Amino acid sequence: MVFRAHTDPELFAQWNGPRRHRMETDHFDCSTGGSYRYRLVSEGVEASFFGSFHEVRPSELIVQTFTFVGEPDGVALERIVFEDIGDGRTRLTATSLVDSFEGRDAFVASGMEVGVREGYERLDELLAR
Amino acid sequence: MVFRAHTDPELFAQWNGPRRHRMETDHFDCSTGGSYRYRLVSEGVEASFFGSFHEVRPSELIVQTFTFVGEPDGVALERIVFEDIGDGRTRLTATSLVDSFEGRDAFVASGMEVGVREGYERLDELLAR
Repeated sequence: MVFRAHTDPELFAQWNGPRRHRMETDHFDCSTGGSYRYRLVSEGVEASFFGSFHEVRPSELIVQTFTFVGEPDGVALERIVFEDIGDGRTRLTATSLVDSFEGRDAFVASGMEVGVREGYERLDELLAR
Repeated sequence: MVFRAHTDPELFAQWNGPRRHRMETDHFDCSTGGSYRYRLVSEGVEASFFGSFHEVRPSELIVQTFTFVGEPDGVALERIVFEDIGDGRTRLTATSLVDSFEGRDAFVASGMEVGVREGYERLDELLAR
C-alpha cells in the first residue's frame, strides 16, 4: 500500500505536498525509464516540479530525479527504500542527494520541509482510511 | 556537433565506451523525460547500462542518471555541460555524483576510466572526420 501510494498517480496526488495545495498532474509514469511533471497549486500560487524515474522495483525501491522549476539548475537524486517490518508496517527511507551545500540550502530554503512533513502526515491519513 | 554526438543514438554508438567494444542499443531517447539502455559488447563479454534523461537542453546541458548493471544499486547523477568557446571549439564538462565514497570507488574499480578516456579519444576522431 505504501509503495502503491507512491506509484499510482491518483493516490500520489492525494497526499504529496503541503496541505491546502492541490496537485495537478501533467504526466506521471512511475516505472523504470518513466518520468513525471506536476504542479502544486494553491490560491494564486503554482509551483512546478519534474523528474525521471531511474528505477522502480515493486515494493522495494524507487530511484528518481527531482527539480523544482523555481531552481531549474538544482537537481536532486532521490532514493526511496520500502521495508516490510512486520505487523502491517512499512519503514520508508527517503534520501535526496545534491551536488553542493548551496544546492542543499536552496532546496531547504524553498519551503520543501513543510511540504515533506505535511505530505507524510497526509500519507499516514490516507493509509488509515 | 558535440551535443549531437551525445543525443543521436547512431552517432553516440560510434564513440561511447572503450575501443574494441561494440555498442548495442536497446533503446535511447535522449530528451527530457526519456531513457536509455545499451550494452557494450566485446568477445565473450557484455556489460549493460541504463538510465534516464532528467533534462536535455539543446547545445547546453544534459542531466542523466547512470547505472552499470554489474553494480545494480550504484546510481550516478551525471551532468554534462556544453560551452561554445569560439573557433569551432566546445568545452565539455562532465561530472558524476554518487552518494558515497564506496560507490565512487566501485565505479572507478569497474574499469570505466578506460572506457571514458578511450571514448573521448574516439569522439575527437569522429568530430575530425
